[in-house]
Amino acid sequence: MLHMIDGVLCGGEKRGKIGVGIIVCEGKISAVYTKNKIKAAPIKFNLQNLSEDVRGIIVNSGNANAFTGEEGVRRAKIMAEFLASKLNCEVSKVAVASTGVIGKQLEIEEIIKIGENVFGKLGNDEKSSLSFAKAIMTTDRFPKMAYWEGEVKIAGVAKGAGMISPNMATMLAFIVSDADLQPRSSKRILRRVVDRTFNQAVVDGDTSTNDTVFLITTGERKISERSFEKGLESVCEELAKQIVKDGEGAKKLLLIKVTGARNNKEGFKAAKVVASSLLVKTAFFGEDPNFGRIVAALGYSGVDVDEKISITFRSKLGEVKVVESGEVVLDELLARKVLSAEEVEVLIDLHKGNGKGHAFGCDLGYEYVRINSEYTT
Amino acid sequence: MLHMIDGVLCGGEKRGKIGVGIIVCEGKISAVYTKNKIKAAPIKFNLQNLSEDVRGIIVNSGNANAFTGEEGVRRAKIMAEFLASKLNCEVSKVAVASTGVIGKQLEIEEIIKIGENVFGKLGNDEKSSLSFAKAIMTTDRFPKMAYWEGEVKIAGVAKGAGMISPNMATMLAFIVSDADLQPRSSKRILRRVVDRTFNQAVVDGDTSTNDTVFLITTGERKISERSFEKGLESVCEELAKQIVKDGEGAKKLLLIKVTGARNNKEGFKAAKVVASSLLVKTAFFGEDPNFGRIVAALGYSGVDVDEKISITFRSKLGEVKVVESGEVVLDELLARKVLSAEEVEVLIDLHKGNGKGHAFGCDLGYEYVRINSEYTT
Repeated sequence: MLHMIDGVLCGGEKRGKIGVGIIVCEGKISAVYTKNKIKAAPIKFNLQNLSEDVRGIIVNSGNANAFTGEEGVRRAKIMAEFLASKLNCEVSKVAVASTGVIGKQLEIEEIIKIGENVFGKLGNDEKSSLSFAKAIMTTDRFPKMAYWEGEVKIAGVAKGAGMISPNMATMLAFIVSDADLQPRSSKRILRRVVDRTFNQAVVDGDTSTNDTVFLITTGERKISERSFEKGLESVCEELAKQIVKDGEGAKKLLLIKVTGARNNKEGFKAAKVVASSLLVKTAFFGEDPNFGRIVAALGYSGVDVDEKISITFRSKLGEVKVVESGEVVLDELLARKVLSAEEVEVLIDLHKGNGKGHAFGCDLGYEYVRINSEYTT
Repeated sequence: MLHMIDGVLCGGEKRGKIGVGIIVCEGKISAVYTKNKIKAAPIKFNLQNLSEDVRGIIVNSGNANAFTGEEGVRRAKIMAEFLASKLNCEVSKVAVASTGVIGKQLEIEEIIKIGENVFGKLGNDEKSSLSFAKAIMTTDRFPKMAYWEGEVKIAGVAKGAGMISPNMATMLAFIVSDADLQPRSSKRILRRVVDRTFNQAVVDGDTSTNDTVFLITTGERKISERSFEKGLESVCEELAKQIVKDGEGAKKLLLIKVTGARNNKEGFKAAKVVASSLLVKTAFFGEDPNFGRIVAALGYSGVDVDEKISITFRSKLGEVKVVESGEVVLDELLARKVLSAEEVEVLIDLHKGNGKGHAFGCDLGYEYVRINSEYTT
């Protein structure tokens, strides 16, 4: 999708476990990083070195370059220096990202070798976009891309399949737009949109050391902040849903929608706690209309709640109210049918106020256990 | 074990999914209940009705009597009235507890019928203790009991296997002692001990609507508060470990021990976050020395931490340091051997201060998914 934006060159390649992706694009960059206190070396490097003006981004998969001390930061710098020398620009104009295993020094020679090859083949076509999206994948089963067009164009690519939530775990997203915005505005908008999209996506509740969302605006076309925020949210929400859909071993996308919360903050919080509950996730894996687990999760979510909750399940196979203001009205057969769809909406009304919120979740089954008990071996 | 305390009569019986257990014992009662805002009917009933002086406890398994509205509280009261009439005492001297499925009205007639039978066979012997412990089980694989003897005797029985943590989820514990303590003291001590034991035990991080710990002291023997707290902690810690060991589908008991935290509060918090991480739990299931996931969990735990962490794995099969002040020193073969034991200690030094803390956890594997995706069916 990145090729939809004029002036963007990109590409990628994977050799065995190591992948390298490169984006070349002149513009202003905004970034949101993981809230994990142990930040990966590329994040430390960006925080120290990256300027507002950017020329390119280099990413590797297969090694997170996290928990690698000063040597890790040195190697992140080598990645940036490599691309800067290719672009004939200052190192401060290159952003770096990594994803993969923690606690192992980066295979820097291999990365540079692959990087040389990738740089030689950069393009502004669909094939190049796809090669970038694939090069940054780890346990992902499919590449993740989204696009929005209004007064401006916004294109995004992301990777991530596990360790998602509460704050963008092992999640990398690269968003490019031809919009012309004040860097201060785009930073503020990006932070807000990330909070409503990526940060409300839950696979397993673990937060990684590497999460990063980059937004580059090339400044070609004018747009109001409001319209841009709408477009950016559309792109980020689509990417977040794709990530959750690809949740390790997930079969189902769960859209938790809360209304009637005391305020929006509580609405988002309640939705996220429900999406994070292991008991809720395994119940959906079993297509079991176990509303009791949703009720229990709401009860410990920390938001204002009492028994007068309403819960409805909805999918393309139908809609079924299971709890109405605290009264259980479950039609189990119908509920099981609704839950057998691949995308299920869980509509929760707390009857406490006008606050709303949502979260994106997935079921959790045997495959999650298999993938995560065998990961480093 | 309850029979070790003079004057205690108990018993239990299970018929199909419904079980009933009864304890008869005159003394002072202290209780700690779930922090879930949606509290089960028996807890609401106790909070409204239970006096400090107690004559007995009646418990049922198979139905949590939670999310059952006023009718649920009425049925909890019927359980209490039944035992009160048998004991010829005020209803305020009977405590009630329930565990099982949420959102279904209690099978009260069946419970009274079983209760009649149980009451007729109460005893002060090992068989009676065991029948009580078994009657209150749900997904538990084995009954849970612990005993301590010093200046006084303390005996405890518990049930719980899933939905454990953060605050005593679907966990019931019944502790009886012949100690003579001020009710205010025993309440305070119980709260502190529960925080260090049951509340640091994690199976899946969900908090139930029903968790309850009861402590009855019969006032026969004097003991200092300090000694009693030590004895009570020993009993509660043993019960918490048994619960975690019986974590749904768990093969391994994980003892997370944190030192070098800024203070004890942070030590307990860090230990609990590590024990709760789904990625850590699945790694231990795979006997995979994936220290990176422990590091990531510490990083998002919210406590003061940087890369200068030390991590050691210890079991009866050996001891292996995997990270030394931020340097990875992993001997993978040895680490795998250590992790293959059924009980593994994870020793974490944060090098930030003198704070300590611990948590009890377990691995998470296919069985957890099977049990929890098939539960209500």
